[in-house]
Amino acid sequence: MKSFYISDLRPGDDLVNELFLLQDVASRTTKNGRPFLLFSARDKTGTISAVFWDVPEHISSWVRSGEVVLLTGRANNYKDSLQISTTDLIQNTTSQMAELLPSSQRPQAEMIAELRQTIESLSEPWQRLVSYILLDKTFLTQYANAPAARQMHHAYIGGVLEHTLSMKTIADFLASHYPYVNRDLLIAGTLLHDMGKTVEYDVAGSFNFTEDGRLVGHIVRAIIMIEKAAQELGDIPPENVQQLVHLVASHHGKLEWGSPTEPKTLEALLLHQVDLLDSRVQGFLEHAQTDVDENGWTVKPSPMFRNEIKRPFPAE
Amino acid sequence: MKSFYISDLRPGDDLVNELFLLQDVASRTTKNGRPFLLFSARDKTGTISAVFWDVPEHISSWVRSGEVVLLTGRANNYKDSLQISTTDLIQNTTSQMAELLPSSQRPQAEMIAELRQTIESLSEPWQRLVSYILLDKTFLTQYANAPAARQMHHAYIGGVLEHTLSMKTIADFLASHYPYVNRDLLIAGTLLHDMGKTVEYDVAGSFNFTEDGRLVGHIVRAIIMIEKAAQELGDIPPENVQQLVHLVASHHGKLEWGSPTEPKTLEALLLHQVDLLDSRVQGFLEHAQTDVDENGWTVKPSPMFRNEIKRPFPAE
Amino acid sequence: MKSFYISDLRPGDDLVNELFLLQDVASRTTKNGRPFLLFSARDKTGTISAVFWDVPEHISSWVRSGEVVLLTGRANNYKDSLQISTTDLIQNTTSQMAELLPSSQRPQAEMIAELRQTIESLSEPWQRLVSYILLDKTFLTQYANAPAARQMHHAYIGGVLEHTLSMKTIADFLASHYPYVNRDLLIAGTLLHDMGKTVEYDVAGSFNFTEDGRLVGHIVRAIIMIEKAAQELGDIPPENVQQLVHLVASHHGKLEWGSPTEPKTLEALLLHQVDLLDSRVQGFLEHAQTDVDENGWTVKPSPMFRNEIKRPFPAE
Amino acid sequence: MKSFYISDLRPGDDLVNELFLLQDVASRTTKNGRPFLLFSARDKTGTISAVFWDVPEHISSWVRSGEVVLLTGRANNYKDSLQISTTDLIQNTTSQMAELLPSSQRPQAEMIAELRQTIESLSEPWQRLVSYILLDKTFLTQYANAPAARQMHHAYIGGVLEHTLSMKTIADFLASHYPYVNRDLLIAGTLLHDMGKTVEYDVAGSFNFTEDGRLVGHIVRAIIMIEKAAQELGDIPPENVQQLVHLVASHHGKLEWGSPTEPKTLEALLLHQVDLLDSRVQGFLEHAQTDVDENGWTVKPSPMFRNEIKRPFPAE
Amino acid sequence: MKSFYISDLRPGDDLVNELFLLQDVASRTTKNGRPFLLFSARDKTGTISAVFWDVPEHISSWVRSGEVVLLTGRANNYKDSLQISTTDLIQNTTSQMAELLPSSQRPQAEMIAELRQTIESLSEPWQRLVSYILLDKTFLTQYANAPAARQMHHAYIGGVLEHTLSMKTIADFLASHYPYVNRDLLIAGTLLHDMGKTVEYDVAGSFNFTEDGRLVGHIVRAIIMIEKAAQELGDIPPENVQQLVHLVASHHGKLEWGSPTEPKTLEALLLHQVDLLDSRVQGFLEHAQTDVDENGWTVKPSPMFRNEIKRPFPAE
Amino acid sequence: MKSFYISDLRPGDDLVNELFLLQDVASRTTKNGRPFLLFSARDKTGTISAVFWDVPEHISSWVRSGEVVLLTGRANNYKDSLQISTTDLIQNTTSQMAELLPSSQRPQAEMIAELRQTIESLSEPWQRLVSYILLDKTFLTQYANAPAARQMHHAYIGGVLEHTLSMKTIADFLASHYPYVNRDLLIAGTLLHDMGKTVEYDVAGSFNFTEDGRLVGHIVRAIIMIEKAAQELGDIPPENVQQLVHLVASHHGKLEWGSPTEPKTLEALLLHQVDLLDSRVQGFLEHAQTDVDENGWTVKPSPMFRNEIKRPFPAE
Repeated sequence: MKSFYISDLRPGDDLVNELFLLQDVASRTTKNGRPFLLFSARDKTGTISAVFWDVPEHISSWVRSGEVVLLTGRANNYKDSLQISTTDLIQNTTSQMAELLPSSQRPQAEMIAELRQTIESLSEPWQRLVSYILLDKTFLTQYANAPAARQMHHAYIGGVLEHTLSMKTIADFLASHYPYVNRDLLIAGTLLHDMGKTVEYDVAGSFNFTEDGRLVGHIVRAIIMIEKAAQELGDIPPENVQQLVHLVASHHGKLEWGSPTEPKTLEALLLHQVDLLDSRVQGFLEHAQTDVDENGWTVKPSPMFRNEIKRPFPAE
Repeated sequence: MKSFYISDLRPGDDLVNELFLLQDVASRTTKNGRPFLLFSARDKTGTISAVFWDVPEHISSWVRSGEVVLLTGRANNYKDSLQISTTDLIQNTTSQMAELLPSSQRPQAEMIAELRQTIESLSEPWQRLVSYILLDKTFLTQYANAPAARQMHHAYIGGVLEHTLSMKTIADFLASHYPYVNRDLLIAGTLLHDMGKTVEYDVAGSFNFTEDGRLVGHIVRAIIMIEKAAQELGDIPPENVQQLVHLVASHHGKLEWGSPTEPKTLEALLLHQVDLLDSRVQGFLEHAQTDVDENGWTVKPSPMFRNEIKRPFPAE
Repeated sequence: MKSFYISDLRPGDDLVNELFLLQDVASRTTKNGRPFLLFSARDKTGTISAVFWDVPEHISSWVRSGEVVLLTGRANNYKDSLQISTTDLIQNTTSQMAELLPSSQRPQAEMIAELRQTIESLSEPWQRLVSYILLDKTFLTQYANAPAARQMHHAYIGGVLEHTLSMKTIADFLASHYPYVNRDLLIAGTLLHDMGKTVEYDVAGSFNFTEDGRLVGHIVRAIIMIEKAAQELGDIPPENVQQLVHLVASHHGKLEWGSPTEPKTLEALLLHQVDLLDSRVQGFLEHAQTDVDENGWTVKPSPMFRNEIKRPFPAE
Repeated sequence: MKSFYISDLRPGDDLVNELFLLQDVASRTTKNGRPFLLFSARDKTGTISAVFWDVPEHISSWVRSGEVVLLTGRANNYKDSLQISTTDLIQNTTSQMAELLPSSQRPQAEMIAELRQTIESLSEPWQRLVSYILLDKTFLTQYANAPAARQMHHAYIGGVLEHTLSMKTIADFLASHYPYVNRDLLIAGTLLHDMGKTVEYDVAGSFNFTEDGRLVGHIVRAIIMIEKAAQELGDIPPENVQQLVHLVASHHGKLEWGSPTEPKTLEALLLHQVDLLDSRVQGFLEHAQTDVDENGWTVKPSPMFRNEIKRPFPAE
Repeated sequence: MKSFYISDLRPGDDLVNELFLLQDVASRTTKNGRPFLLFSARDKTGTISAVFWDVPEHISSWVRSGEVVLLTGRANNYKDSLQISTTDLIQNTTSQMAELLPSSQRPQAEMIAELRQTIESLSEPWQRLVSYILLDKTFLTQYANAPAARQMHHAYIGGVLEHTLSMKTIADFLASHYPYVNRDLLIAGTLLHDMGKTVEYDVAGSFNFTEDGRLVGHIVRAIIMIEKAAQELGDIPPENVQQLVHLVASHHGKLEWGSPTEPKTLEALLLHQVDLLDSRVQGFLEHAQTDVDENGWTVKPSPMFRNEIKRPFPAE
Repeated sequence: MKSFYISDLRPGDDLVNELFLLQDVASRTTKNGRPFLLFSARDKTGTISAVFWDVPEHISSWVRSGEVVLLTGRANNYKDSLQISTTDLIQNTTSQMAELLPSSQRPQAEMIAELRQTIESLSEPWQRLVSYILLDKTFLTQYANAPAARQMHHAYIGGVLEHTLSMKTIADFLASHYPYVNRDLLIAGTLLHDMGKTVEYDVAGSFNFTEDGRLVGHIVRAIIMIEKAAQELGDIPPENVQQLVHLVASHHGKLEWGSPTEPKTLEALLLHQVDLLDSRVQGFLEHAQTDVDENGWTVKPSPMFRNEIKRPFPAE
């Protein structure tokens, strides 16, 4: 679909109606009063800075961060980096985000099928409640695209779903490994615990926090969604809702990590431990893909672990 | 109404159908197999331990913590303390909690009047939303009776309302002292921020945490109540609800103090600071009423401040 | 074997050559100069205080904490508690510790069989190294009896092995769930990580710390044992030893939790996470067996979680 | 008075005897041995780097950070920034600091009048003690010019006085809102608590710490000033001095925030809370004036709150 | 002088005009209205509780904590402990505190001689300043009696002086071991750093904090004393005073340990390190004198180190 | 030996077979496909960046970080900094590291002599054990060259030995100053405590961590070396080894500072305190040599103390 990806751009490349996502859009004026636009163009392979001199009125009227565009221009060297000198921008609405932002390596359809199968395995009232929330068509799309984080781990399209399904598999195993575990409650909590992230990050805007992410946060937002669904369904026993809310509320494990309450039931404890385990392992594997030295140690310390870590797989 | 208060009991006092609240009820059996009941009897002046030998079936069937009773028995010395040897218990439902538990010194009617007046001072949609929640007759009773804490500060019937109104007066002052403050939002947030405490503590049971207090907590519960009210009213702008939820969510000020998000708007910052100020001052004044030495220093360190503090008022 | 267990003792019971473990032995003299011995007698059901007046020389010469004895005496009430008035003590060496101290509920033979099977599943050089250390006959006995902790979790005979095998099952699952995991290294590290606890706690003395536990600690002791074994075997590649030492050294996960280094390889990270998970779940389940109130909440906060927790299984 | 302000400078502007404050003055030599002077020129609108080649002896002899000068030179572009090529510097002593450094927006005369009025409202001996210290003519000038901080809040000329008066108004309100407050002590403490900042920051040198600010600090310095004044006045009761010293010593509220003792009296607690409130609110409002995105969120996290915050007032 | 010491008292001992220090004095009344006095009698060997029934008016008028008395009465067993039944108390003013409170094992005269010698070794102006403060006759007595702490280390009469002299010897050694150390400044700071403790603890009242200790603290008090002395002497260079104040202010090393500023000069760093070293070693040696088990480990964890420690000397 | 040192290089200088250490070696290719090598050349006076275009195969085959070379090329200005344009590199193996890396100012021979003398002063079995480890010829060379840290303090060749000997002198003094100190144990522990640093840092590679430093760390490595030596010697009493291991294990003093156990014996406490003292003082003196302002304060805060500090010696 795209002719050029940012990671392959070379000085002198000419771009014609090339698909990009706009970010960090800023209007500026030179000291002599000549107006120009600075922005970042993004696709799934990276980000590049761009400039557009003397933007015509019919473009400046709609241009802003988060827009998808067809860009015409040329790649030049500017201060030791590549920059795109832009000559035209056309608004575009039909593109697939997967070309523009990094995505999970698991196919989305496969993940959604696994999700549906898992929901079907739940007994009532869990199945009714979870499917009411997650299988709503509009919401499912958002849910299947949400990133799990801005950085650190699963910070890409589909990250929430990939992380959720990995946790689900582990949770299922532990529900049979340990005694007394309410498997339906644990799996329901696992599937719903991060769904608030659908409104926490602005997928089209660098995975930045949204207004709701800043003011409310994904934990409280998910709880509100559960309570609303239970109210609309009408027949979910209050104790079940309360238990489920507890799992979501406490899944970060500690107050200082953002949970308004700490795990006090066996399922809440398991959900927290599995979340911790999966995000740590994924954070490790993702950081291990950054630059390593000749002995396989990452050059930079992992922001999650504060140490340099050793890559567990051979050089590519 | 009551003939004896616990703080005045003497060995040998005979109690006949005296009003008490039961707490810490436990069934026990001696090594020889004789059954007896241990419990605490409570009124607003204190708590005393009690024993009831060979409890008849028609009493043991209903007796439990939180029941209000008319007790017949006698105060005896037992191991250096007073204990009531109980001979009869009659279930009672009409008593006033104010006789049985410590209460705010401000008359409840006066506080409710001040609350109504404050709500009337709010512009729309705040007035509609806040009155819909707080002036609901059933809820208002709970709200006006809730303690603000289990210990530390305002740990008595009416404590939430007394604390809320004190904060409201300060918040009103600061809304005019500082620029840019949205007074209606700040006052609405002040009135609602602790309402979740109506379900957090078991008023009849030593102010212990309830199931909901443990699993959900007063912050998240209040948010759920606001969202539900907004949904039922139908016409409250979502931005207003979001702002208000932010105030409630962040009023503890820091994640490690139990807030799932930290204050990010001016009104949220003010609400947190006023809550901190009022609870600290009240915690200081309450601890200053405990035993002091001859120089006016409390004998024990304040659990809130970790230090002994100096009483600011003369000895009684 | 035993006629009386401490949990069943009643005032007036006469004990004749009853098997106990001595603890907290202290020689005292009354103000009038009469000598007596104070000690605790322990069996798997609990601990009881005991006194022995005018101990004859042939007994006082060997009596000390950690001795197993046949005790003759009588159970009396003393200051509201039971106490054994002792009249004779006979040194005993053949008793089974399982009668005297709490034990894992898993049969030891079954656990050892599972351990052997796991070691056999390892590829070389891991299998040679691990079996050289763990399957040494003398050491295996200590290892199979060691408690995993003094309190908190798995604080009973066989606790280390039970905990290790539970972790092993989870580790095996995760080795196939996540990519790039060196399963042999992870399982070897799992089996060896807590073996230093064989010398950290004094099994016969209330699970107290030993001299080595205080001065060296189980992490460093295990590392010394691995290095010594590798030196004696002579042909274990140094990189393998280094990797394994890293797993043991870092399994507490953080410096402040006692690890001299933090996990920097994928297997070290997994070992730490699985250790954390299994000890937290077990600590939860053990605390849930303490007293609960009528709603199933533990009366005391868990020392591990700082909160009261909800029992996940029905009342007994 | 000034013809050019730094915020308005353009490349090519010629400056003739323009008033600036010198900062960061450093003598350098090129690899070829040609001497030059690097420095920053500052006025109330900002800071600009400057260079002066081949400085004549009669200038190099006195030039140093903190001097006020009349500068002649030209603004040039150098490495993407503006730099002043200086050709002459004349020492100047009569300028008003208000042209050279950022100042409070409240007129100084108005603030001093409010200060005098407040002091007059105090009863004795507080009035005598406070006026002896603050109304000393020399000291009052320093006090009215001192910044409250190097950054974070009230970091401008007059910041201490503005902050102090805002706190005074709130303290006065709280003295009547809460019972048992000694209003005179609280107001006296409020007026004096930050006076040590007159010697903590070098007003003419980027608000950097002075030798005394580094070695002694503003809290201890203020206490020394109070003790010295009390000694000179001779008749202030020692208990009053001790109480006042306690307020100053404890106003940061916690040891880790630099107070050598923590608040143990009601007035000390109130002073700390009001200081916290006013500095937080002012820190919020100041950070809200930095760059915000299109939704009104600051681009950078507040150094005081660690989060991005939402601007409470409309865009300029 | 004394006929009985508390550590040797036996039931039945009759005391006639025996010297004690009164502590924890409290007037009580039985339920029947009979008045009595409860108090602790203290001498250098320990503390014992005492009761005095029907205290005559001429005694109750002056009796209070901190009084030294000649006591007449009898030692009885009461609830498993010894208690003195008192029949007379005579006020006494001439006794030596060394009989009544634990003291340093170094003779006071020897320590004062060493102090004088050290002061004489200082160059000017340090010698003049330090001797003016410490060799003042009244102050020297207080200084030579002050305890260094309430518990933890050197918590006995003369503790400050003993600790100071030990630090002085180490500081002297380090002043020659490391380069650039101003020995006079370091020794002067060492001698003065804890002198504020003369007013921080109430030597006659259980080493409790005094009003000044609570409100001002020994660090700030010592600084005030230095500033006052410098002002009275008139000719001490301000830089010297400032340096010395910095040493005293920063000697706890960190803000959270109560220092209002942290060490920023070489001498301040050394003073802090030597203080830390000497108090830790002394705290270790003192705790090692508490009960140990058969392997020489203290039974209780050290409050300073949080661990049980190993006694470095043989059993007595 | 060398003709040019990096600190003296000027643009245009021609280097012929000049001795350097290679670091940060990286192979790169221009966009046009021309290969070049980027690296840092280091000598004891500093580091300079270098470029080598079109590296011939016989050089690229061996070139890597840590190699010592004879370099031919020319110093040029490149982007405001000096850079060496390299034309030839010859591998070199005989050079002295002291020309290439910063070294202790104490002559190595002198330090080794002092070390030998100290070991001779130890009684048995300490002397035998310590000399067996440290006086091994191969190891002694590594030990005498090891840096004590990567930054912060003693971060230069010979730093471990210099730091160790300074600590030894202080420890010797304290062993006589305090009672009950086992001087031989303390000195043995002092000499061995940091010997693991011989394998923790890569002396030839910027003092970076080695594989062993990252996975095992210097504390555990030193313990393994002690245990191995004791095993090889065969006749060192186990208690002595255990005591010594405790000193090494606990010398960082706290778990969060990387010690797997905390000091529990008098000698372990002393070793920790002396290590803390000497590293703090040295860290202070080293930072004091960085840039200072006109009042002698360092321009940057010390990474060890977080504050700017005052230089204790006059300007050079």
